[in-house]
Amino acid sequence: MNRAVDRKFSIGLDYGTNSVRAIVVDLADGGEIAAGHYDYAGGDRGVLLDARDPNLARQDPADYVEGYRRAVGEAVRAARGRRGFRPDRVAGIGVDTTGSTPLPVDADGVALATKRAFRKNLAAKAWLWKDHTSTAEAAEITARAARGKDGYLTKCGGVYSSEWYWAKLLRCHRAAPAVIEAAAGWVELCDYVPGFLTGQTAPQALPRSVCAAGHKAMYHEDWGGLPSRAFLRRLEPELERFRASYAGVALPSDRRAGTLTVEMANAVGLPAGIPVAVGALDAHMGAVGSGVKPGTLVKIIGTSTCDITVWPLDRPLADVPGVCGIVPGSVLPDAYGLEAGQSAVGDIFDWFVRQLAPGGGGDDAHIRLTRAAAKLQPGQSGLLALDWNNGNRTVLVDPLLTGMVLGQTLHTTAAEVYRALIEATAFGALMIIDRLEEYGVRIREIVNCGGIAEKNPLVMQIYADVTNRPMKVSRSAQSCALGAAIFGAVAGGAFRSVAAAQRRMTGTKSELFRPRRAAVAVYAELFRLYRQLHDAFGTNGGGGLHRVMKDLITLRDRARR
Amino acid sequence: MNRAVDRKFSIGLDYGTNSVRAIVVDLADGGEIAAGHYDYAGGDRGVLLDARDPNLARQDPADYVEGYRRAVGEAVRAARGRRGFRPDRVAGIGVDTTGSTPLPVDADGVALATKRAFRKNLAAKAWLWKDHTSTAEAAEITARAARGKDGYLTKCGGVYSSEWYWAKLLRCHRAAPAVIEAAAGWVELCDYVPGFLTGQTAPQALPRSVCAAGHKAMYHEDWGGLPSRAFLRRLEPELERFRASYAGVALPSDRRAGTLTVEMANAVGLPAGIPVAVGALDAHMGAVGSGVKPGTLVKIIGTSTCDITVWPLDRPLADVPGVCGIVPGSVLPDAYGLEAGQSAVGDIFDWFVRQLAPGGGGDDAHIRLTRAAAKLQPGQSGLLALDWNNGNRTVLVDPLLTGMVLGQTLHTTAAEVYRALIEATAFGALMIIDRLEEYGVRIREIVNCGGIAEKNPLVMQIYADVTNRPMKVSRSAQSCALGAAIFGAVAGGAFRSVAAAQRRMTGTKSELFRPRRAAVAVYAELFRLYRQLHDAFGTNGGGGLHRVMKDLITLRDRARR
Repeated sequence: MNRAVDRKFSIGLDYGTNSVRAIVVDLADGGEIAAGHYDYAGGDRGVLLDARDPNLARQDPADYVEGYRRAVGEAVRAARGRRGFRPDRVAGIGVDTTGSTPLPVDADGVALATKRAFRKNLAAKAWLWKDHTSTAEAAEITARAARGKDGYLTKCGGVYSSEWYWAKLLRCHRAAPAVIEAAAGWVELCDYVPGFLTGQTAPQALPRSVCAAGHKAMYHEDWGGLPSRAFLRRLEPELERFRASYAGVALPSDRRAGTLTVEMANAVGLPAGIPVAVGALDAHMGAVGSGVKPGTLVKIIGTSTCDITVWPLDRPLADVPGVCGIVPGSVLPDAYGLEAGQSAVGDIFDWFVRQLAPGGGGDDAHIRLTRAAAKLQPGQSGLLALDWNNGNRTVLVDPLLTGMVLGQTLHTTAAEVYRALIEATAFGALMIIDRLEEYGVRIREIVNCGGIAEKNPLVMQIYADVTNRPMKVSRSAQSCALGAAIFGAVAGGAFRSVAAAQRRMTGTKSELFRPRRAAVAVYAELFRLYRQLHDAFGTNGGGGLHRVMKDLITLRDRARR
Repeated sequence: MNRAVDRKFSIGLDYGTNSVRAIVVDLADGGEIAAGHYDYAGGDRGVLLDARDPNLARQDPADYVEGYRRAVGEAVRAARGRRGFRPDRVAGIGVDTTGSTPLPVDADGVALATKRAFRKNLAAKAWLWKDHTSTAEAAEITARAARGKDGYLTKCGGVYSSEWYWAKLLRCHRAAPAVIEAAAGWVELCDYVPGFLTGQTAPQALPRSVCAAGHKAMYHEDWGGLPSRAFLRRLEPELERFRASYAGVALPSDRRAGTLTVEMANAVGLPAGIPVAVGALDAHMGAVGSGVKPGTLVKIIGTSTCDITVWPLDRPLADVPGVCGIVPGSVLPDAYGLEAGQSAVGDIFDWFVRQLAPGGGGDDAHIRLTRAAAKLQPGQSGLLALDWNNGNRTVLVDPLLTGMVLGQTLHTTAAEVYRALIEATAFGALMIIDRLEEYGVRIREIVNCGGIAEKNPLVMQIYADVTNRPMKVSRSAQSCALGAAIFGAVAGGAFRSVAAAQRRMTGTKSELFRPRRAAVAVYAELFRLYRQLHDAFGTNGGGGLHRVMKDLITLRDRARR
């Protein structure tokens, strides 16, 4: 495939929280030859908000279609100038999106939000992953599943999240019954996009991603797919209808969802008929784009993290308590996908800079504080923090936890606190690694991707020192879109398997961050103290402190009413 | 005393950390008719520092003499213009100073620091109250006293402090033996000043303050004055010599130290022979200037606090664990003085503004943050803090404790943290009140004085709400100097007793801060949580968390070496 005449390409489409990104990738080496980009037009940087409810976060489905036209159109135009590229050499298209981001559709798969009657109804929009209006409903689902014997919670760490599919549908039923009544189905964004690309939009016919279904809609072959009709009926009779309109078998992303329609092809200057892969969630495709395989943990580090690894289907695997998803085929077709994550990482650093950094926030403050923090030795500040400003996703699975900084004197500096917050996220990362290994999932390699991994060597070095493992960084700055392009290529027949495509198209940067012996020793001691705080405030392990954060939240909510 | 021709006056001299203040007071009503001020010339705002040791804080004795000349000279000149004032109508002079601030002197009472051989030796200067070089020595004294049966720790809360007299002498012996060898005595600053005013400087002859001796040098009549020769000898044979040169009987401040010498009188435009009262520590005189009496707690709120009350000598009084001084006559001559305190209050707010307030520090930031914090309801932030950035003086008596802020989210603001820190100091204040009452010392009234009480109504309101008691503020903005002036007047014979002088010369402002019912209820719940954290991290009460802060300090000190 070295000669220009033989070249083949694929397109990866990455639907983020604020924008869509498209890349055109050379199948010879995974190199990105062109890119396009579209910032959502709706709401606040693409997110529809409600001043009366800070938990609400929605998106306008019109932005999804426009995002495809603009981002892919721009990428294809840019690629035309590159040697060897021709639109008919695009082997396939892959799609990744945020999730769980379900939207209500009619029987033809048309988004309710595009209809006149619902145009101004926020409940008819897409319910963005970070919409937290469904906390009570999620707790209700958890409680009911815990009482049952079906084991529905065993694959999602023991707790069903307010960010997930069924909680959002149940919430919509309660808060906006007219929307639920008018809906024929609820479609995850990562299914909706391949749907309109291929013209297969009707909810019953639409191929569904096993990644989204498994991680967000409690789909698992152990119990025959989606949760039982009886279970959903007991939650709310209306939900049973959406089980019926959800495709029976969910598919991994090496499978075709269909082929590009004439209309969608013309809109971006591609030929019709290009295979489109079944979609998946962004982090899972990011893991593939970063070269995930058994023994490799991929950390996608952004505002929060997703920590993803895989495990061969043919080897025994225990349920890992607190690990929020264990789904066959959700990452690689022939492996269990395991998803863990930290509820806030970059968000914590941004919060600190925005609210508490002297001299104003913004990127300059990050650079200034990082430089000052890099001069400190491990332990030198005397500070220790908990990374729970947005709760704890893994391993405690508790959104009602909050942050902590301990050890301040009258001389404590902003840079010292900043470094303590970085260290806290590293300790949180180690908790996840330790939990996986404790249940037999050995981690031999860690590959990082995302903006922070790209831009902040101090964070990477502290992660290496705290975990006592080398930190590698994915070669691609767009690992999620690259993962999507890989699935596009495989679904298009350019490779025999995802693993074969990964071998050719993924890799890590030559620079890696090695643990430094002296720092490792200090951080081992600090981690022991972190675990003490973690267990005292995060678990019901005695001492009675596990109620403190929750009582404060109760008082806070009461004061705010 | 209403007619100008009958008027009498006294002078109060207040030696602070950074400056000396002198006021001329009308004995008719305690009104300040004139004032003078001198900023110490030496070091950093009067404090000699050592870049190699952040614990060191010394002062130049030359500043003390110059401070008298300049501050009293200015005050007397200003008073001359006021109706009824004449220098020969000054009934007496009183002196309060920081402490324990001992300085080494020769047999004539000349400060070693003024001699050529020691001019550049920091160990020969005055060891300022906040010098913390003697931590190890203080721990040694505590350990030895705890092993003995003399009860030496019963009157100082169970722990001897690194800020106190014997710890500083022992440290000097180890760190600068030449200074100890050359010294004939070590004199507290509040004895040194009356000494040079009255010409009685030789250490054996110099009248000593029972306030300084009792609170700082383990002086108590229960064991016949200073600690025994045997006890000091076992600590270090050299110390026995300084016991011998310390006056046998220490005196309360209604007694005369002597009369003003011709030289000192001429220097400031006063007649010679004016009675000078025995000195005392600033906070204790501040309590008198704020009207302290049995049942009244005076809180002197500055960088740290002193909380002072008194108890009749003829009524039984238990030792109160954690209360750092219980000394007969140290505040009022006919009462036990009880001294407690918080190691940092204003210092915590200043630290936060300096290091962590966005938009820069300084007074503007205090005003801005106070305004924003005042808009918050109790409990609304969801935050809870510990006020231990400088350790905990009362009731835990543990310098190796550090601060904590808990409950942060991704939306927590600087104003919320600022308010949480104010609340933390209020909870710390309530711990002291509760401890006193638990041991029978009933508190019926709280009078505040000092800059924060004067300037920050939000702090006062929160203190009222947290303690569920009205907060009064002393009428005088210079309560310490006023207290000194009261003792000057009593020692000069203008009043029969300190209580009689207080009745005429002290009072509180008409505005007081009343507890608000709704806030009281919320703070009662927050205080319960504060106590949980307080006990978990501050006491060995189980849960194992009491080592966390200490282990972090150990790691910090190791990293900094």
